[in-house]
Amino acid sequence: MTVRSGRVKHSRRLATRAFRAETGEFLAEGPQAVREALQIPGVVLEVFATGEATSRHPELVASAGDAWVQVDDDVVAAVADSVHPQGIVARCRSTIGQLSELPGQAGFVVVCADVRDPGNAGAVIRCADAAGADAVILAGDSVDPLNPKAVRATAGSLFHLPVLVERDIGAVLAELQGRGLQVLAADGTGDVGLFDPALDLAAPTAWLMGNEAWGLPTGTRALADHVVAVPLYGRAESLNLATAAAVCLYASAAARHR
Amino acid sequence: MTVRSGRVKHSRRLATRAFRAETGEFLAEGPQAVREALQIPGVVLEVFATGEATSRHPELVASAGDAWVQVDDDVVAAVADSVHPQGIVARCRSTIGQLSELPGQAGFVVVCADVRDPGNAGAVIRCADAAGADAVILAGDSVDPLNPKAVRATAGSLFHLPVLVERDIGAVLAELQGRGLQVLAADGTGDVGLFDPALDLAAPTAWLMGNEAWGLPTGTRALADHVVAVPLYGRAESLNLATAAAVCLYASAAARHR
Repeated sequence: MTVRSGRVKHSRRLATRAFRAETGEFLAEGPQAVREALQIPGVVLEVFATGEATSRHPELVASAGDAWVQVDDDVVAAVADSVHPQGIVARCRSTIGQLSELPGQAGFVVVCADVRDPGNAGAVIRCADAAGADAVILAGDSVDPLNPKAVRATAGSLFHLPVLVERDIGAVLAELQGRGLQVLAADGTGDVGLFDPALDLAAPTAWLMGNEAWGLPTGTRALADHVVAVPLYGRAESLNLATAAAVCLYASAAARHR
Repeated sequence: MTVRSGRVKHSRRLATRAFRAETGEFLAEGPQAVREALQIPGVVLEVFATGEATSRHPELVASAGDAWVQVDDDVVAAVADSVHPQGIVARCRSTIGQLSELPGQAGFVVVCADVRDPGNAGAVIRCADAAGADAVILAGDSVDPLNPKAVRATAGSLFHLPVLVERDIGAVLAELQGRGLQVLAADGTGDVGLFDPALDLAAPTAWLMGNEAWGLPTGTRALADHVVAVPLYGRAESLNLATAAAVCLYASAAARHR
């Protein structure tokens, strides 16, 4: 197989959101992501690996079976988005679900509204996994979680919990509130501080995180049960999206495990 | 002034760590950073600004006085590290201190050991500021906090609290422990969970954060009073450095303000 072969060209095109949507496929890069992907039956369609990666990861070769394709280094370099995919890139079937696939017992959910940066979206998914959330919903005009940079930033967490996409933010919040979850919008303008004892963080909760630059639109904020501010004890004007999410999600996680 | 003038060439060279160390100068980009820098007397040496930025920020022009230099767009583009410096870049005198400049009353300190990524270092400084820390110490073989990407990631916090540099991590921890601060090393191998009631997070504390890839070396961990793990409730193997720092620093901040 060379960089000019049809299968390689097909995989290269998965760098674009349009082709990912058309095919329902995406790329996972590096041994850790591929290991996680292989644990979900039917997800990995094809693994492009260099000879060196093939020698180094016999357990992945065994797990991938016929899907493992040893190729020259330039093929992996051509398919990969990252500069150092460690010699291994997998073409995968989309693991992204729709709102209707939200697990019935979900009591701790993260909603990203109009989050645009793939690194931020990926970091929030990783953090949601770490904090024990049941699902992440990318709502509104958010970045595609199957963007290569987003996949990389999840560090495997993309394969650990349901990640759902739904354009209609109002429908997402109505569904969650209908299931009895309180919606907490994280926003610097919040009327309640995150550590205010009046806030019941152990209750079933959906955290709503807004865009990295402009936060949550007024109309969306108004749908939340509480608008919650992470207290700023020093002189910083704000936290970045991923660190604000980490602080909010772990405040909930700590309360849920207390 | 053109892109070939000596002053422009001098500022361009500040992109390298060696020239920053030689001159004791660095660059701050964008109106927000320049506004913060101007609030500290003697820091801003020269502001390169486009005609548009000059019209848009009369308060900065007034505050900068003789240091304000209106230039063509290509000069700002040549000096800036970022693609969108919003027409304004300031040459500044270093605000970085040494360990001996740690404030006497510091009771909440963040130490980065061998943190290499400028975005991470900047995010930790921003987060330390938000959580109300008294200082950040970049120890060991850490990235230069005056790296343009690091400065940008601090979002102005570089100018809000003392940021100190010291190569000798052992000396840093001895100094902090000598002042009565407990040193808490954040590490996934930790023997105490972050939310363990045995941990007194309201006490004077220095948080020790390790390298983004390999964490803290055993020898450094051994110097800490406690090695503290952020609990992982889901299936994620770890958090990234900035989000782990956010969770630890806010756990301390919440305890200190309870």
